[in-house]
Amino acid sequence: MYDCIIIGGGPAGLSAAIQLRRRNRSVLVVSNPAAQNPLSKAEKIDNYLGLPGLTGAELLERFQQHAEDAGVEFKTGRVISTMAFDGWMLNVGAEVYQAKALILAAGVTRAAKYPGEQELLGHGVSYCATCDGMLYRKKPVVVVGRSADAPQEANYLAEIGCQVTYVSPQQPKGLNPEIPYVKANRLAVEGEGSVEALTADGAKLPCQGVFILRDSVAPTDLIPGLETEGGYIKVNRHMETSVSGVFAAGDCTGKPLQVSKAVGEGLVAGDSADKFLD
Amino acid sequence: MYDCIIIGGGPAGLSAAIQLRRRNRSVLVVSNPAAQNPLSKAEKIDNYLGLPGLTGAELLERFQQHAEDAGVEFKTGRVISTMAFDGWMLNVGAEVYQAKALILAAGVTRAAKYPGEQELLGHGVSYCATCDGMLYRKKPVVVVGRSADAPQEANYLAEIGCQVTYVSPQQPKGLNPEIPYVKANRLAVEGEGSVEALTADGAKLPCQGVFILRDSVAPTDLIPGLETEGGYIKVNRHMETSVSGVFAAGDCTGKPLQVSKAVGEGLVAGDSADKFLD
Repeated sequence: MYDCIIIGGGPAGLSAAIQLRRRNRSVLVVSNPAAQNPLSKAEKIDNYLGLPGLTGAELLERFQQHAEDAGVEFKTGRVISTMAFDGWMLNVGAEVYQAKALILAAGVTRAAKYPGEQELLGHGVSYCATCDGMLYRKKPVVVVGRSADAPQEANYLAEIGCQVTYVSPQQPKGLNPEIPYVKANRLAVEGEGSVEALTADGAKLPCQGVFILRDSVAPTDLIPGLETEGGYIKVNRHMETSVSGVFAAGDCTGKPLQVSKAVGEGLVAGDSADKFLD
Repeated sequence: MYDCIIIGGGPAGLSAAIQLRRRNRSVLVVSNPAAQNPLSKAEKIDNYLGLPGLTGAELLERFQQHAEDAGVEFKTGRVISTMAFDGWMLNVGAEVYQAKALILAAGVTRAAKYPGEQELLGHGVSYCATCDGMLYRKKPVVVVGRSADAPQEANYLAEIGCQVTYVSPQQPKGLNPEIPYVKANRLAVEGEGSVEALTADGAKLPCQGVFILRDSVAPTDLIPGLETEGGYIKVNRHMETSVSGVFAAGDCTGKPLQVSKAVGEGLVAGDSADKFLD
């Protein structure tokens, strides 16, 4: 049981984590590997006060070092779902973590849902291969690869005996060559009551399970009742969301999508979470 | 004529300035000397992401260097008054500057007004020795010293022929020893229609002018119609105040009074001012 779990390991999440550590709170940051953070691809950041001229990767490394030195704990992985129970329970892959407060700082989630995805979620649509793979042994499944580690997840499903087809807009790296690959952009999940097929650019791929693997689950899917505004998480000046005990900071709360804003909001979210924990 | 004048040279003001320079806007930062910035007295700042372990003075120096390198212009001085005219005209001491947009980032102004101060402002009460001193030659005036440079201002008034008495809670540094000094805390300006005396801890000091010299003029006195909330400048998430073309950032907008928050808000204020200038 942590005092606070922070979803997202970018500037907002790390700034929040450091502020909570200063208040002697236990903090776990759950995030994708740093190399997948969009900041790590920035050529040069010149408007973060006091640290001009660094690449995004260099800046992120300094930020992480600072957080590590402050005693922040880290877990690489994707939060699949949450449940409000004695604080919050979080599914990270197949593991469960618990915290009294949550801070959402996972950046911008750009992925719109596919037709049929929401309706058939839990009825053949899954976001987690390690969680639900065993249910589909010897059955045909499609993996929709929208994250860097999706090929590994598809390989895992094949290993445990699923009949896997892999669908993505670009040729995947590291996919088991025995797994058929379909290049497609326009996808829709089909089925009445449970998944029957995935249509991929018009072609029908019959299956019983569809694993949709994105870099992150949209926060509105993670937290029931979370209000948004123009596609971003709605927050007040204390970085409180519409859900008690849940705070947000950084790009997920809206523009400008800049490091300084994320760091500032992270501090405020950390401070507010600390007050909430009191 | 600048695109934007920023009042305050702390983290919020400098972050806003850098963001505006990135958009190629001309920027003037008006502030007290850095040594007077409360941040410069902080022993150690450990929660500004990526730059832990520095003293406040070291951090501030890095921030200033960054802003200078970005082409920000600086003016040491106190903004005495503003006027909305073709953008904004600002009195800095006895000089006038002009800008299309303003950002308020002067930190927390703790000084409450003295009884009689507001009523007699412009009728004997002044905030600027170099502006109004000549009006009081050969006349008795009191200088209320609440800023580091107040003794110099008092010396100036004595030099041009005012009959100066100096009042402050602590022994002033650098005051001309020929100027009488009264140690007092509880002050009130007295007079019907114009200043007649200052009462200092009960003692009446007859005078025609009272120069009240603080580190900064309260923003609500600078900008007519500026709305506040709990003593802080009211802003929305874009750091817009209640007055069009006037933005605010940092400690003046409320708690937590922290460097990261100020830097983040500064960036957002700079970004919003840039959009306003479009």
